Amino acid sequence: MKLRQLGEDRLVKSLLRALPSNQLISSTGDDCAVVKSVAPGNLLVLKTDCVVERIHFQSATDPILIGWKAMMRPLSDFAATSAIPQFALITLVVPGTKSTSWVEKLYRGLRRAASRFDVDIVGGETSATPGPVSISVSVSGFVERKRRVSRAGGKSGDDLFVTGRLGGSLRRKHLRFVPRIEESRWLTQNFQIHAMMDLSDGLGIDLPRLARASRLGFEIKIEQLPLTAGAKIENAISDGEDYELLFAISPRERDRLQKAWRKKFPKLPLTRIGRLNPQSAIRNPKLKSGYVHFQ
Amino acid sequence: MKLRQLGEDRLVKSLLRALPSNQLISSTGDDCAVVKSVAPGNLLVLKTDCVVERIHFQSATDPILIGWKAMMRPLSDFAATSAIPQFALITLVVPGTKSTSWVEKLYRGLRRAASRFDVDIVGGETSATPGPVSISVSVSGFVERKRRVSRAGGKSGDDLFVTGRLGGSLRRKHLRFVPRIEESRWLTQNFQIHAMMDLSDGLGIDLPRLARASRLGFEIKIEQLPLTAGAKIENAISDGEDYELLFAISPRERDRLQKAWRKKFPKLPLTRIGRLNPQSAIRNPKLKSGYVHFQ
Repeated sequence: MKLRQLGEDRLVKSLLRALPSNQLISSTGDDCAVVKSVAPGNLLVLKTDCVVERIHFQSATDPILIGWKAMMRPLSDFAATSAIPQFALITLVVPGTKSTSWVEKLYRGLRRAASRFDVDIVGGETSATPGPVSISVSVSGFVERKRRVSRAGGKSGDDLFVTGRLGGSLRRKHLRFVPRIEESRWLTQNFQIHAMMDLSDGLGIDLPRLARASRLGFEIKIEQLPLTAGAKIENAISDGEDYELLFAISPRERDRLQKAWRKKFPKLPLTRIGRLNPQSAIRNPKLKSGYVHFQ
Repeated sequence: MKLRQLGEDRLVKSLLRALPSNQLISSTGDDCAVVKSVAPGNLLVLKTDCVVERIHFQSATDPILIGWKAMMRPLSDFAATSAIPQFALITLVVPGTKSTSWVEKLYRGLRRAASRFDVDIVGGETSATPGPVSISVSVSGFVERKRRVSRAGGKSGDDLFVTGRLGGSLRRKHLRFVPRIEESRWLTQNFQIHAMMDLSDGLGIDLPRLARASRLGFEIKIEQLPLTAGAKIENAISDGEDYELLFAISPRERDRLQKAWRKKFPKLPLTRIGRLNPQSAIRNPKLKSGYVHFQ
């Protein structure tokens, strides 16, 4: 059956039928989602992101994987902030010619990804469109005041670490990644993380962003970048969509961090790729892209 | 200049430059927006909605008005819930061929609408697309536990009221409406509102939704519907995009409500259009659309 034969009310109702609702007070069917508020003293964390057909996924991509990616992208930003995601709202812009089974699979992927992190999907909107499919996911959650991390806050001399391996994400990982929320929460529970972000546009673009936000420069040992099997250094720098964590931490914590990490996450590499240094190193205004800093 | 010559980082940065930030702790440029949480005892309210080119607006529509509409649509759902909106995140999906001045005007409309209700725009994402423009706005805010209203809660015998005038919105109002947040907040501060919603799809579709959510039927005096100048009864029932409030309240409150309303909102009509009645009246499963109930 095509979407246009079904109608939005019935679609949203059927898609949201099987959702958990432990904290939801009123939801879809109502005009807004109403949920329990964040515990006093914690901060409210908000993020929205979208995926668009032919930009972030191919038209022939398995819709379960599209749904997974659409949900996991904003959740990766929660990892960057060391925040706990709780509630998601979905805006689905889809042509009436798509089949209902395609949309059902998409929601299966969205739900599967949400439940991986105990996120409740508490609302949804759908709209027709004459163009490509786009799925926007907006997530709210919280972070304890003392555990919030941002891109700013790095100190000169800090070690720079990345989780996992970089490069070649488009071959497989970009549709199947698991945001580093567990790792990020463990890091801020056990260490003073000065600055952190997730790598979505590639180290060559993202690392300069973290350095700029911290008003510092950086130096990297290119040959130490942890590479995905089959990827080259250029891929690790430029491909993007790694969804790994990049963070800055005092070198005094180095030994304790590396030992504790290996014990806690034995399968996931943690690699020291370089360090933050004084701002003067990147003062040259002609350096437009982060890429040139790596040469 | 075309968007594709500018790049997303610079675009988002320039668009968010002039934003207020009274409660924002960290924002765009960072991965998530982090804000002060809702006061203890209040409920967190979440809503996302979108407008799509050639569905919700014409390609030639003034982008300031498009931005206004994109922001006001989810805010109208806050009115329905009697909630206070606080923070908005914007996802802009736009082809690289659009001019930067078009996007700047769009944001001017978004900001103008947000500031009308003291809403802070705390984050934004943009994505390229091979198709039409779509703008998704996701809003968070709060409502006091005792003032929350939903579509459920209507009681048999309740009066049904609508604010303003219905029908003919596409001629002008759908791009310029002001959500009834002030009116809604006044209502729940001074009266026990049993059920409420905003009229977005037309009374013929929306009223049956409120009745169903309250597990009741309804009866309407069609000739009493408040009509926009030039609109007919069919328009009031079927056009949609009225963004007026529909609510249910005990008839014991009728006199006090009507008197106080005329004093508080002398320019805005408040019309009793009918009442809720026992469920049996709409048990016939063949009645698919609300429209038939009006005959």
